[in-house]
Amino acid sequence: MENDKILLAHGGGGRLSYELISNLFLPAFKNPILEALDDSASLAVDKQRLAFSTDSYTVKPLFFPGGDIGRLAVYGTVNDLAMVGALPLYISISLVIEEGLALSVLKKIIDSIKEAANKTKIKIVTGDTKVVEKGGIDKLFINTTGIGSIPEGVSISGKNGKVGDMILLSGTVGDHGIAVLSQREGFNFQGEIKTDCQPLNNLVKDMLKASKGIHVLRDPTRGGLATALNEIALSSDVEMIIDEEKIPIKEEVKGACEMLGLDPLSVANEGKLIALVEEKASEKILKAMKGNPLGQDAVIIGKVEKGGVSRVILKTLIGGKRILDLPSGELLPRIC
Amino acid sequence: MENDKILLAHGGGGRLSYELISNLFLPAFKNPILEALDDSASLAVDKQRLAFSTDSYTVKPLFFPGGDIGRLAVYGTVNDLAMVGALPLYISISLVIEEGLALSVLKKIIDSIKEAANKTKIKIVTGDTKVVEKGGIDKLFINTTGIGSIPEGVSISGKNGKVGDMILLSGTVGDHGIAVLSQREGFNFQGEIKTDCQPLNNLVKDMLKASKGIHVLRDPTRGGLATALNEIALSSDVEMIIDEEKIPIKEEVKGACEMLGLDPLSVANEGKLIALVEEKASEKILKAMKGNPLGQDAVIIGKVEKGGVSRVILKTLIGGKRILDLPSGELLPRIC
Repeated sequence: MENDKILLAHGGGGRLSYELISNLFLPAFKNPILEALDDSASLAVDKQRLAFSTDSYTVKPLFFPGGDIGRLAVYGTVNDLAMVGALPLYISISLVIEEGLALSVLKKIIDSIKEAANKTKIKIVTGDTKVVEKGGIDKLFINTTGIGSIPEGVSISGKNGKVGDMILLSGTVGDHGIAVLSQREGFNFQGEIKTDCQPLNNLVKDMLKASKGIHVLRDPTRGGLATALNEIALSSDVEMIIDEEKIPIKEEVKGACEMLGLDPLSVANEGKLIALVEEKASEKILKAMKGNPLGQDAVIIGKVEKGGVSRVILKTLIGGKRILDLPSGELLPRIC
Repeated sequence: MENDKILLAHGGGGRLSYELISNLFLPAFKNPILEALDDSASLAVDKQRLAFSTDSYTVKPLFFPGGDIGRLAVYGTVNDLAMVGALPLYISISLVIEEGLALSVLKKIIDSIKEAANKTKIKIVTGDTKVVEKGGIDKLFINTTGIGSIPEGVSISGKNGKVGDMILLSGTVGDHGIAVLSQREGFNFQGEIKTDCQPLNNLVKDMLKASKGIHVLRDPTRGGLATALNEIALSSDVEMIIDEEKIPIKEEVKGACEMLGLDPLSVANEGKLIALVEEKASEKILKAMKGNPLGQDAVIIGKVEKGGVSRVILKTLIGGKRILDLPSGELLPRIC
């Protein structure tokens, strides 16, 4: 590693995050389950396969258009479980709170957690609360860790992408990141941009009902679509061709990104998924997605063209081709 | 709740923590598994009972005599699993790091996590890393969430205490809290006081091998022995009589507590356990504890005298009796 200090980019989901994981954590913790690098670990426990996933949420501000940290923390982990095809079962909630936080704020967030857990039928079964002195943390961070059950016959992993697979995207990108950023910085963009923060478990259920030919699922959170596609390309060792024209982006999000000099493909989402599916099942799966409210804008955005080379190629709007790399440098911090 | 702000004491493990959980979290998250309020949730998944436990570690400083935050985070969760009799299986590691933390510091902590996981044979199977801007968090917090398997025939819970049970303590109290505090504040106490941070899973295994007559296990961490005993009294609705004279406390710890005006019974431990066991099995279990290096100072400190009243009575050193209450006010913050 070239630097001897942790930078914001180490946690941004891009290149430096990837290096930190590859160079420091993986060698230290080495085991096959961890190395799959899926959003959830799949655990074989007495013939029952469980999914197990953790995330700490440090989003700033705590409340943003369309959501808040509590809802995000529950749906985020439910979504990570769903990304290996798991049904949500149990979740832990661990809060680290700054001394002086208004109880009314905490209560609102707790209510939001409760509502999100009810909606997704995940049971909050254990938790922890720490309070640190004023200035020791900025308001409130939440860790959620979830357990889900993986149905028989389902085998979804970032490393299962195959040549010929079609690449599906469930809807518009960039909404969450721009919603949080606009609230944080007090930008007044044309039209209110809301987070897309939603639970994807039912969408995945509908997709699996349509076909078992789903090889990879990933929700493009931190680092956006560009990061998620690159992670899959690396895990599956495949080259993908993505058609930029097909990627749905809301006009307001596009405008905000232009103004801020951001690439919407690198901006976080919290209610979208990418799927790599067997070509012959792709239309059926797409139809199932469109039939679910969270997949109504679903599209095929590309295809896995060849193996043996890990990269994402973007056919750009102006007709050229370029490599869509892992975003590098300082991405948006504290976006989730 | 009388205050409209979160105070340090809300996270201290004492009275206000208890109120926060009882008045805010439990009513919101209501379900039988959560309500057992054990250190781990017991999950029934296809005839296999799993333990599942979470904790966020915010200890300050990151390194202290005999330990560091990494080791603490792994052993802490292994111990929570052990407190329902579970064998450690899987653990998640979630880091929130302050921008600017030296990589060398992070590496030392990662190595420590690895060593602790190897020693307890728990597999780190998933994780997360967030970085927040300088000042957004104090250096590094770690969440660990663990899954363990509960052997058949084992039923250990804070609510299983029964009249006639003997109360065992595995060793000296107060070491961890005083070790961290002395490092943090730069106190120079007589003789170095080290943390007792150790994994208790093998001690519990030895105890269970000796007898299945173990009703309750609890590790007296935040809020110390006083908190843990009161939690058990409340869960089991029993009155315990504790013989203060029997509680082992190192001379250096006693001295430090006197100097600082702390009650050693309220100071955190990270490698000790309390057990409520059937009277007829108590000598056998005590012998098994003494045969393990982590239980060599084990003693019987008291007895469950009656039911229907939840309190802990201390027979004091000077021959009187007093109620040993849940510690209240600001306990030591960031001790774990």
